[in-house]
Parts: sequence; C-alpha cells; structure tokens
Amino acid sequence: MTAIAPWMQRLGMLHPIIQAPMAGTSTPELAAAVSHAGGLGSLGLGAHSVEQAHADILRTRELTQAPFNVNLFCHRNAHADPERDAAWLEYLAPEFARFGARPPRRLENIYPSAVGNGPLQGMILQLRPAVVSFHFGLPEQPFIDALRRAGCLTMACATSLDEALHIEQAGIDVVIAQGMEAGGHRGVFEPEHDQFMGTLGLVQLLVRHTQLPVVAAGGIMDGTGIAAALQLGACGVQMGTAFVLCPESAASPAYRATLQSPRSMHTQLTSAISGRPARGLSSRLHTLGQRYGQALPDYPRAYDAAKALHRVASASDCHDYAPFWAGQGAPLARALPAAELMHTLCQELYAAQKNSAR
Amino acid sequence: MTAIAPWMQRLGMLHPIIQAPMAGTSTPELAAAVSHAGGLGSLGLGAHSVEQAHADILRTRELTQAPFNVNLFCHRNAHADPERDAAWLEYLAPEFARFGARPPRRLENIYPSAVGNGPLQGMILQLRPAVVSFHFGLPEQPFIDALRRAGCLTMACATSLDEALHIEQAGIDVVIAQGMEAGGHRGVFEPEHDQFMGTLGLVQLLVRHTQLPVVAAGGIMDGTGIAAALQLGACGVQMGTAFVLCPESAASPAYRATLQSPRSMHTQLTSAISGRPARGLSSRLHTLGQRYGQALPDYPRAYDAAKALHRVASASDCHDYAPFWAGQGAPLARALPAAELMHTLCQELYAAQKNSAR
Repeated sequence: MTAIAPWMQRLGMLHPIIQAPMAGTSTPELAAAVSHAGGLGSLGLGAHSVEQAHADILRTRELTQAPFNVNLFCHRNAHADPERDAAWLEYLAPEFARFGARPPRRLENIYPSAVGNGPLQGMILQLRPAVVSFHFGLPEQPFIDALRRAGCLTMACATSLDEALHIEQAGIDVVIAQGMEAGGHRGVFEPEHDQFMGTLGLVQLLVRHTQLPVVAAGGIMDGTGIAAALQLGACGVQMGTAFVLCPESAASPAYRATLQSPRSMHTQLTSAISGRPARGLSSRLHTLGQRYGQALPDYPRAYDAAKALHRVASASDCHDYAPFWAGQGAPLARALPAAELMHTLCQELYAAQKNSAR
Repeated sequence: MTAIAPWMQRLGMLHPIIQAPMAGTSTPELAAAVSHAGGLGSLGLGAHSVEQAHADILRTRELTQAPFNVNLFCHRNAHADPERDAAWLEYLAPEFARFGARPPRRLENIYPSAVGNGPLQGMILQLRPAVVSFHFGLPEQPFIDALRRAGCLTMACATSLDEALHIEQAGIDVVIAQGMEAGGHRGVFEPEHDQFMGTLGLVQLLVRHTQLPVVAAGGIMDGTGIAAALQLGACGVQMGTAFVLCPESAASPAYRATLQSPRSMHTQLTSAISGRPARGLSSRLHTLGQRYGQALPDYPRAYDAAKALHRVASASDCHDYAPFWAGQGAPLARALPAAELMHTLCQELYAAQKNSAR
C-alpha cells in the first residue's frame, strides 16, 4: 500500500487524496463523504458570507467526525474602477438584450477576501477546523500564526516555485502544486506574472526546491494519475473535476450533462468570467472575453456581471454563460457517489503501483 | 525492468527513451550516442537543406548501426505577406540599431516544409531511415504510405486528441503526445486552435481515446518523470531539454551557460521568434513579441528576422535575442555525456518503479 505522509497520518487520512475545495460546487455532504472514506474532504468558502461559512462548517461536523479542509480566498481586494466596469457592462449589454434584459448599473465586490477580514478570521479561529487552506495568495502572517497555534494544519496553493517559496517562508505546512491543467480558478498570486506551469513540471520543481510536502493538483482523474503524481515525488493529490459528478456535489443538472458530453474535451482559461484566470468548459463567455481588447474589472467585480448574465440567461433555460469549471482531465470524469469513487481510486492506485514493478 | 513496447523491441531499443529531434541542437553524434545506448536518437532536419539532411543521415550511420529517428517539419508553407513582413521589420529596427545595423530588406521562407517537397521526400525514401517522424502536421498520404512500404516506422506529434485521431487515421504508427511544458516549437497543427494541453492531461486522453502507442513529451527530465509517464499509460518518453547539455549537442557555450543559470526557471511560449509558438528561456524577443499588437509573419518568415537580429547581436557578444529553447523542466537539466545520461535515467527509472511498489 502507499506510504501515507506523516501530516496525513496525523489527520487520520488513509489515502493520499484531497477532494479539492470548489466554491459553489463543494458541499458539506461531499466533504464529509470524502473524509469519511479516508481522504480529505474540503469546503470552498470563497463565495460564502461569514454566516454561510459558519453554517457549512457546523453542518459538515454533524455529518462526520473526520477532519476536513476549509479553503479561504486570499485575493488582493478589488480596486474599483468605474470606467472599466462601465466599459465591460456596455460590452455585455447585447448579451443581456438577447433575453430582453439590461446589465446591472454597477458592479460590486461580491466576494470579500479573507485578507483583512476580521469577522471571517475570527470565526475560523473560533471554530478551529482541522485544516485551513488558502487560494490566490496568503492572509496576514498573524492570522497564519494564530491558526497554527490553534492546532490547525495549513495548506496553500502555488502555481510557481516563487509562490511556493513564499508559502514555505510563511510557515505554511503543505503546498498544493496547481498545474495549468486544473479546473476552476488558478491560484496564481499575481495574474500578470503567471508562468502557466504544467502539473508535471511544477510538481518536480517544488519537490526539489522546497522542503514542504507537495500535493499535486491539475488533470488528475484516476488511480493511474495519482500513481504518476506520487512517482514525481508528490505526497498526495488534490482532485476537483473528478468529484464534480458525485451526487453529493452542488453541480446543477446542466453542469453534469455538459461535463458528460463531448464538450468536456474543450476547456479554456479565461479571466472574462470572474476577473481572474479560471479554466472551464468553453462557452460564449470565453469567446466574448477573447475579443475584448481592454482591461477587465478586477476579481470579483467581473464575476458580478457574469453571474447576473447567467441568472438572466438560465431563467430562459440558456446555459451559454454558465461557468462550468473543469480541468483538462474533464473527459475522464465519472459519476459515482463519493465513497464509491474513493474506493475506485484506491483500487486503481494500488493496481497501477503493483503493475509498475513488473 | 520496464516492459518494452513491441514497436520499440523491433527497433532494438532497450529503454523506452527517445531523444527529441531538435533542429539546430540535435547532431549525428548525439543521435548516435543515444541509439547506441539503447534509446532512440533523433535528427531534427527541419532547418536543413536536402543536402545537409542527406549528409547528417549518412554521418549518423557511420557512427552507429542502431536505428535512429529522422524528423521532418510539415508546416503549411508560409503565406508571404509583404505588409506584415515590413511592419515586423520596422518594429524590430530599433533593436538592430542597438548594434549599428539595419534589419533585412525582406524576409524569406528560410525552411521549406517537407509538404510538397519532392527533393526532400525522394532523398528520405532513398535512404529509408528506420524511423521517420513529423512535426507541425502530416505530409501527403502517398509519402506516408511510401515510407511504410519502405519499412520505415512513422511517428507524429500531437498536441490534442483531434490531432492524434488525424494521425491515427493516416496510418502513422506512434503518436508523440507533446504537452505545453515542452521546449522548442509546439507541434500544434493550427496555432489558432491550440488547446494548450498539459502533458499529464494529454497523455491520459490519448491513451484512452486512440489505439496508438503514446509517447509522452514535455517536462520529462529524469527517471521519476519517465516512471510517471509510464504510470499514465505512455509506452515511452521523448526528452529534449534533458539532452541539450550533453557535450554531443550543438548547443553554444552561451546556451549551455544560460540553461544552467537561474534563468532556467523562466520559460515562455512565444510566436515572435519564428512565427509559430515555441517555448524557450525568457528573452528580450519574448517581451518584444508580447508588446506587438499586429499579426506576425508566418513561420518561418519571422524566424528569418529573429536569426538576422541574433546574428548581429551575438557578433557583439549580446545574447538578448538568442532562441534558447527549453521546456518547463529546464532547471532539472544535467550536463552529462549522452551515454552517461542514458545510464543515469535508467537507474532512476528502475529505482522509482521499485520504490512505488513498497
């Protein structure tokens, strides 16, 4: 069987598999099922209010005694640029008009960062989740230190060696090496300096140039992918797209159907949906984003526009603007209950490792 | 030991390792050393005249009895657009001026494609290399069929499943799955439709959706990377950057020094050097390309400009415009004679496979 890294053993994990936090798609039920099956389930709280986040953590604790991971978005708070907002809304106006609607008059910072977020940080410190992880960057050092003193294990996403070294210096316990294959938002600290490292390249670099345990994320969909990541020196994997089709996720019927269709073969990175680069099934919004020559509103202001457009369109049963996040492994996604998927992944992993030694 | 795929066994290969063809960097000496050591060496003939290509093949045969791979570029022949050429040359004029020089008056198609190239195709059919491979697309079906009748094994590069299926339908024997981590020119058939698949994602897709043996390329630098690729279902790997520092390659002292410096950490894709997307160590040409808002001259017309600029600059010992091709695994490159590198790779591969079964 696979050796389980010490930090995973301390959490009581039996398998080196983390279900990725996916804001809007992860649920307490999914996280609990994965943790209960010996992996590490995760809640993606980046799109939650403090109250919703609090409720989800408590709900997950009702469903499982096992540890789970709570993920916070640590983006630089958006700079409000009314001209940029207005230009983007004007550009999208014809799309709203398809449904007899108008764009919103203004955009809001719909998702406040965890950075500088007293109420959120206070709530997290009070609840002391077993694992707290960070995406888009790191929160303030005092918060990281307080979490560690409270006994929380900390993890953070890196898309480059520079970011991983930053994470290591901040005293974070585990680094998630997120390759450009990954679905959803890229955890890149500063999108202007994105190196677009592939998972294969990034994992090898972090394994050699940091002292941290490295978790591989991006494009991993089954046991052979997990085995490959372990061969590269990762101590485990984080899998997002692989869990989207579990009945326990919050994915809509349209999301599930599209992910199981030939459209799963085509994903694209775009900042046009939210203001920050993210990978999903190619949609009309990707095309609109490619043709827009100006600067987009900062994350998450652009997201406010996309969500309004999707709301209006889906009311007419049109999913052209749905942010169906998915990684490059999307064609390999399977619709299985989380516990069954975990069991399948472990069987595949064990078989792959046994075969490779022949 | 690793099971060697039947097609590799027929070639007398002992190890599932192909040294990537690298036009301008591969040499008869390098190819011969790799084939002699039980891998498959390659000649990159895309930048050669028919005479030079003929001479290199004969030279390699003097150095080794073992089979080796001969790689041909099958790009769509460049469309000459004098306005586009003039605009690009004008944009580069200040760079030439740094060295008291002027840009060329015009650009030429310096590297004719193998497509429609009677003299080249005739020469190849006459010499009947053991392996003939294609980059940027495929040549005409009659040429492929003639090569197969002549007993040549054929391989072609795919950057997407669409391309791989195309390759399979043409009767090609082996597909090289080239991820975006790879150094040098992307083999994408039509750059306008590039999906930027990472190696991890692409290999898994091709293994499941084609019947061809799949060779993994892009970011693989050592035995653990090879082991990971095999876990994913690849039958072998193609490694380019890993071989650049071998003394047998044609890499210049400046190329070697830069590849072994911290600059190895930063590679970038750009079409500004040659007209087609290629990955190399970040240079002034990358910056120039990023800022240019217009369409570049088709490959290889833009390459004519970049080569002229590099010639002028390096005459003043300035390497700002050197196309130092390298993949995302560049920091892991090692300077070893090819035979020693092959030996090291095999030891690492065997150790990685043995470890994974514990």
